[in-house]
Amino acid sequence: MTGPTSGTRPDEIRRHNRTALLRRLHVDGPSTRASLAAELGLNRSTIKALVDGLAEGGVVAERVPAQRSGAGRPSLLVLPQPHAAVVMTIDVRVEQVAMGFVGLGGEILGRDSWNLHHRTRDPGEVITHVVESAKLMADDLAVTAVGVGVSVPGVVRRSDGLVHEAPNLHWTNVALGKRLEAVLKLPVQVGNDSELGALAEHVRGAARASQDMVYISADVGVGGGVILSGAPLRGVGGYVGELGHMVVRPGGRRCYCGCDGCWETEVGEAALCRALGLPEDAPRGAVVAELKALEDVAKLDGFAEWLALGLVNVVNVLGPELVVLGDLYTSLPDSVVAYVSDVVQRRSLVSRAVGGTQIVTSPLGRDAKLLGAAELAFEPVLERI
Amino acid sequence: MTGPTSGTRPDEIRRHNRTALLRRLHVDGPSTRASLAAELGLNRSTIKALVDGLAEGGVVAERVPAQRSGAGRPSLLVLPQPHAAVVMTIDVRVEQVAMGFVGLGGEILGRDSWNLHHRTRDPGEVITHVVESAKLMADDLAVTAVGVGVSVPGVVRRSDGLVHEAPNLHWTNVALGKRLEAVLKLPVQVGNDSELGALAEHVRGAARASQDMVYISADVGVGGGVILSGAPLRGVGGYVGELGHMVVRPGGRRCYCGCDGCWETEVGEAALCRALGLPEDAPRGAVVAELKALEDVAKLDGFAEWLALGLVNVVNVLGPELVVLGDLYTSLPDSVVAYVSDVVQRRSLVSRAVGGTQIVTSPLGRDAKLLGAAELAFEPVLERI
Repeated sequence: MTGPTSGTRPDEIRRHNRTALLRRLHVDGPSTRASLAAELGLNRSTIKALVDGLAEGGVVAERVPAQRSGAGRPSLLVLPQPHAAVVMTIDVRVEQVAMGFVGLGGEILGRDSWNLHHRTRDPGEVITHVVESAKLMADDLAVTAVGVGVSVPGVVRRSDGLVHEAPNLHWTNVALGKRLEAVLKLPVQVGNDSELGALAEHVRGAARASQDMVYISADVGVGGGVILSGAPLRGVGGYVGELGHMVVRPGGRRCYCGCDGCWETEVGEAALCRALGLPEDAPRGAVVAELKALEDVAKLDGFAEWLALGLVNVVNVLGPELVVLGDLYTSLPDSVVAYVSDVVQRRSLVSRAVGGTQIVTSPLGRDAKLLGAAELAFEPVLERI
Repeated sequence: MTGPTSGTRPDEIRRHNRTALLRRLHVDGPSTRASLAAELGLNRSTIKALVDGLAEGGVVAERVPAQRSGAGRPSLLVLPQPHAAVVMTIDVRVEQVAMGFVGLGGEILGRDSWNLHHRTRDPGEVITHVVESAKLMADDLAVTAVGVGVSVPGVVRRSDGLVHEAPNLHWTNVALGKRLEAVLKLPVQVGNDSELGALAEHVRGAARASQDMVYISADVGVGGGVILSGAPLRGVGGYVGELGHMVVRPGGRRCYCGCDGCWETEVGEAALCRALGLPEDAPRGAVVAELKALEDVAKLDGFAEWLALGLVNVVNVLGPELVVLGDLYTSLPDSVVAYVSDVVQRRSLVSRAVGGTQIVTSPLGRDAKLLGAAELAFEPVLERI
């Protein structure tokens, strides 16, 4: 786990171990020297040298743990210092942009958000607003970001942050990564929102213990991010799949993608509004309020049936042990989640084979994509702190 | 490419390079010493030492190439010797078992097959027949197998070859790997048929140049094997997905898996028979003959529509650059393949994003799974020759 994949020069090994230790602290939070040594498979003198170096640079601090366990000299607690490395994270949604600054250890140090309308959804407008907001927030928080992560609900080329198609935003071929890099003068990583939601759940949410998971979320559209054998699933060119555009109801409603009866048209926000008897473009707050106050859960029977059917397909194709339902789906009544979970257990051949795929709602809720984009930005940062 | 992932002891490096060279010869066939050196990134003296060692053991032979290219001393051609390492390969299908012996380099040295009926489909019967046939063939061919690969149309646990569920065979929890190992006294690897079809296409077929591909085939049922970023896609516990059990027609025909309107019920062999006006259980020969003689291709319009719809889903979820249609699908009229290919290009959001997913029929045809099972058996063998 801590061995380098090639090369054996001492400085390379030291760098590799330092990154592994930082990643551990960033993901798991404060740990004792003893547990770091055990988890990373390094001896205590190596840990001491690494921690001393990081403490000298102000990247970590050490203190005697409040509660001593066992006898003997207590192992010092090593704490990541949030301000030692800060990234900017941007979650571009269809109806809102959320952004924040996230420190080493994953804490959101500050956040801002604004609604998007037809006019302000233009990429240039979004970029201008992001830059202005970033300056104000950085001054307020007295932080300097060292990298930027961006979540976009669309088909994104990871290598350069080109947004090939983000249909619900009406964006086509937007060089978002390059344009943000030019104005922010920082490295920018852009990812698909569902892929980043999956990453956040895997690092900090419901899927920490799972190596094979799918994250499905509804904002306006429906998307899915997949992690199999601990690694994100990507197709050719690094593109991720569009799970919301499985056709589940041939001859059903027209989808903008060119198909009829996509899963998204049956279980997206508009479909949920229809099921609840709200206008299809009801504001998010009204949809969530209606779900919370819902007395007649039977209204959602049809919706739940389509949600379950798509989940059976997802599980049959990908074979995950866990499916995390995110974003708007976290407001679904428990009985609906229990129903779809039951259907998947009973009807999916693959769920039966793998011993039952668990279906849960996201503990990160609306922050999943924001946190996932922060992790995307942190990946290169942890290697060069 | 040729560097070991850990350790730098000279004997480990030598072993690693030897395996890489053998794999190259096994997959690509005869190569000159010069091209091996270039492709493996090794110098000519290292190649000479490795080849000399292998030639001494009879694993390869060398000869002066018939056609000289360029001036100077010709580089010797290195040829893998098929009999130096032979594996047994078994393709258990719903209506037939095919088996063969495959030599280093991938040549099928001999083969046998027999039909399965209700009674002979019992796992014990299959195993008995395999053992008897194996003895006769090994004697005839004067070979000794060093490993066994088995393809099964079902949900298989790779670690020990347990067939969890092979519905069309009516097998449940059959310890096929363990039982074959006990009687054959050889290491046995068991894999899902579609996964092995994908492996064969990737190593020896239509997908040699593709790192992101899906293999879809119809025998009685419909299955899919997936390779993304050059590695097979597997879910939790190593189980592969069951692409044939995506629901594409809710409320459609009942499938044995517990769902209605699975892709398999719309595009499996029975569905093709219905479209052709044949009885659902028409013998394979009759189906293929009918397809070859087909004058009214419009008979297949509905079938083609369902095939295309499922392929749109597969491409939208997985994002491959190439889909290979195997087994029974290789007998489809060209116009049907052209039609589904066109539909995928037009309707799949992801195909459009990745620049067009190509759809082709398998050049390996009915041998794909047999050859894939052989590769499964060769994997450990190449490391210890």
